[in-house]
Amino acid sequence: MQRITINPSQIHGSHIAIDPAQDRYLTRVLRLQPGDRFQAIDGTGKLYLCAIAASSAQPGAEIIEIGIPAAQRDGGSFPLITLICALPKGNNFDDLVRACTELGVTTIYPAISDRTLLNPSPQKLQRWRKIAQEAAEQSERLTISTITEPQTLATIFAQLPTIEDSVQTHSARYLCEARGTHPHLLECLQSTIPTASDIIIAIGPEGGWTQAEIELAIEYDFRLVSLGRQILRTITAPIVALAIVTAATNANPRPQVLI
Amino acid sequence: MQRITINPSQIHGSHIAIDPAQDRYLTRVLRLQPGDRFQAIDGTGKLYLCAIAASSAQPGAEIIEIGIPAAQRDGGSFPLITLICALPKGNNFDDLVRACTELGVTTIYPAISDRTLLNPSPQKLQRWRKIAQEAAEQSERLTISTITEPQTLATIFAQLPTIEDSVQTHSARYLCEARGTHPHLLECLQSTIPTASDIIIAIGPEGGWTQAEIELAIEYDFRLVSLGRQILRTITAPIVALAIVTAATNANPRPQVLI
Repeated sequence: MQRITINPSQIHGSHIAIDPAQDRYLTRVLRLQPGDRFQAIDGTGKLYLCAIAASSAQPGAEIIEIGIPAAQRDGGSFPLITLICALPKGNNFDDLVRACTELGVTTIYPAISDRTLLNPSPQKLQRWRKIAQEAAEQSERLTISTITEPQTLATIFAQLPTIEDSVQTHSARYLCEARGTHPHLLECLQSTIPTASDIIIAIGPEGGWTQAEIELAIEYDFRLVSLGRQILRTITAPIVALAIVTAATNANPRPQVLI
Repeated sequence: MQRITINPSQIHGSHIAIDPAQDRYLTRVLRLQPGDRFQAIDGTGKLYLCAIAASSAQPGAEIIEIGIPAAQRDGGSFPLITLICALPKGNNFDDLVRACTELGVTTIYPAISDRTLLNPSPQKLQRWRKIAQEAAEQSERLTISTITEPQTLATIFAQLPTIEDSVQTHSARYLCEARGTHPHLLECLQSTIPTASDIIIAIGPEGGWTQAEIELAIEYDFRLVSLGRQILRTITAPIVALAIVTAATNANPRPQVLI
C-alpha cells in the first residue's frame, strides 16, 4: 500500500489535514479517489491506515486504524544505532544516507574531521533529510533517521551522554580504524549486544582519523575496532559497519507485521 | 605506492613490457622517471615491485621483487566468495561491482531472473570488468573479481560444482529472501564457516525471486536465509550480504603486510 510521511501537527483527532503537495501526490500521482486507502507515518513510530476523505474544500483523510508502535516493528527492542561519519568527497553522502536509513540507523552525525575539506551547504542537509525520509518510506520504516548539521568530532562527542550515563545505558561505542590490528567490530558487538541499548559507530574520512581525533574518541569511551582486512572506500565502510551492526543485533528476524 | 594491473603475458623474466596506455599513465600522469618504483599486479595474486627501465624505444620496467602470494594477503585461507546477483535497474550494478570487489568477492554472476527486464549490452560487461579492476587496485587486492556474462539462474546454477562435489569442497550456498522468516545469514555462516571453503550468495531482483527460481535453488543445495528485518533495495542487499560474509569469515584481521 502507498505510504506518505505526515507531520504529527497534521493530525486532528481521527482526521488528517493533507497539505497541497500531499494532496497532489495522492490524488494526481497515485490517482486515489475518496474512500481509497493509503498509509501515513508521522516519523515518531506510528503508522496510520487512512482513507481519502470525501472531497471538500480542504483536502484530508480519515484515520481508519493506528498501526503498531515502532517498538514492535522498527527495532524498539533492539539497540539504537548512531552513525558518526566523516563527510566524504562529492555527493557520496547521499548514497550513504539512503543505505544507512534502509539499515535502520537512528541518527547520523555528519562529521567535519581534521581531514575533511568541504563544509556542505544547508541545501545539502535538506537534501539528506529528504533522502532519509524517502528511504524510510521505501524500506517501510516507521521512524525516520535524524540527520544533524555537520559538526566537528569534538562538538559531536560533547553531545553524547557522559561516560557515566553511557555505562548506565549500556552505550557501546566503536571507532572504526583501517589497517589496524584491532578486534573486529563483529566480535566486539557479539560480546556486547546482549546488554547494549545503544550502539555508536564512528567512521573516519579518507586517510583515516588523525591521532588527536583517535585520542579524543578514546576519552569518550570509544573502542577502536576493525572492519576486517579489506581496504574500503569511505563511502563503503559505513554501510559495511551498519550491515554488521544490524546483522549482529537482529540475527533472529521476526515475521513482518503489516497492517 | 602507485599500482597498475598488467597482463601476465607482459612479463618476460625480470622485465615487464609496458604497453602504451600504461606508459602514458606511469610517465605522463604519475610523472615517474627511469628508476622510479611502482607496483604491478597480474590479477592472479602476484604483486610486483617494479622500477621504470632506462628510457628506450620500447617502454618497460624491471621487476625488483615479487610480492607475497595472494594466499597470505587476499583471503586465500578464507572461503572463496561468489555472488549471484539479479541485475538491478539502471546503472546501479556499477556501484555494486565496486563495493563487492572492495569486500573481496571472487566471482560475480550477473543473473537474468524471471523478474529481470533488461539484458545489458556487451559494453556494460566491459565497464563492470574495468570497475572491478580499478576497485581491486584501489583496495589493494591482489586478485581481480571475475565477472561473467549475464545469464539465467538455471545457466549459472548448471556451472556450479555438483552437489556431491560441493559437499566435498564444503560449498555453502545461500539464497537471500526478504520478508521471510528464514534463519539469518550470519547465524548460518557462523555455524558453517569453519568448514566452508567457498560461499555462494544469491540475491534476487526487485520483487524477489519467483517460486520457480526458489525451488530451483533448493534443488541446487541453496539454503534460504534472511538478511534481517530491514527491507533493503536490490542495490543495497548484496553489499550487506557480502559485508556479513566477510565479517563472519575474517573477524580476526591480520596486520597488513605491504611490500
